[in-house]
Amino acid sequence: MTTAEKTKDEAEIRECIQGWAKALRVKDVDGLMSHYTPDILAFDLAPPLQHAGAAYRKGFEEWFRSFRGPIGIEIRDLDITAGEDVAFTHSLNHISGVRTSGEETDVWVRVTVCFRKVGGKWLASHEHVSVPFYMDGSDKAAVDLRP
Amino acid sequence: MTTAEKTKDEAEIRECIQGWAKALRVKDVDGLMSHYTPDILAFDLAPPLQHAGAAYRKGFEEWFRSFRGPIGIEIRDLDITAGEDVAFTHSLNHISGVRTSGEETDVWVRVTVCFRKVGGKWLASHEHVSVPFYMDGSDKAAVDLRP
Repeated sequence: MTTAEKTKDEAEIRECIQGWAKALRVKDVDGLMSHYTPDILAFDLAPPLQHAGAAYRKGFEEWFRSFRGPIGIEIRDLDITAGEDVAFTHSLNHISGVRTSGEETDVWVRVTVCFRKVGGKWLASHEHVSVPFYMDGSDKAAVDLRP
Repeated sequence: MTTAEKTKDEAEIRECIQGWAKALRVKDVDGLMSHYTPDILAFDLAPPLQHAGAAYRKGFEEWFRSFRGPIGIEIRDLDITAGEDVAFTHSLNHISGVRTSGEETDVWVRVTVCFRKVGGKWLASHEHVSVPFYMDGSDKAAVDLRP
């Protein structure tokens, strides 16, 4: 794999993530899901432990409906490691917006995305999104952390 | 990349994870850290949002000291995707044991490990360990889930 190929793959993955973020902002489920393989296996913020394929789409649909307007998403510290047909990225993502309940969401989450190159296109086949939790006996999710 | 090469890489990564688990069980920090690159960037169960290099080692040392005896670790649903020099795995890991406080730990966590092949050896350069949290207003970490 040449440096030029590596740079090209990294640029394609960066574009993929930017396209994903753009779709998330405007709550475009089809656009969002176009970045995943049909067998996507996700570890998400909400239970259960894992979400597969169609269940992950359904989760996004429900989550999108819980926001009044568009969803704010900022991606920080994006780090891309790309091989020939396998790649992974990690970043800290800031999610913000107003829920239909009137409640304001403003949380930084850790995101790991794992890619396979399928038919010349990078698609995410695994995603892991989380916050840590306080081990002070409260077991509270640490939704107040800032990078 | 031939099928034989792929199979060999997958076997090496499986061995790496088994070696990691063996070191964890007996609280062997050096053995554990031998599976990571020096620049390991980890998203862990406890804050802060991310732990880098030496800080991750320190976290393990503290965590090991909090257990009275050995640590139980069972790895389930291990899925390996290996390219030529980049790979990732995900699994559900069961952590159990008795803490020095007398409290019993018995939790299933989601684990994503991302590898680079360095000098012919697979090493983890990124790791993400988490539990989801309940979005019922309590924001409680879901430490009671079972696969």
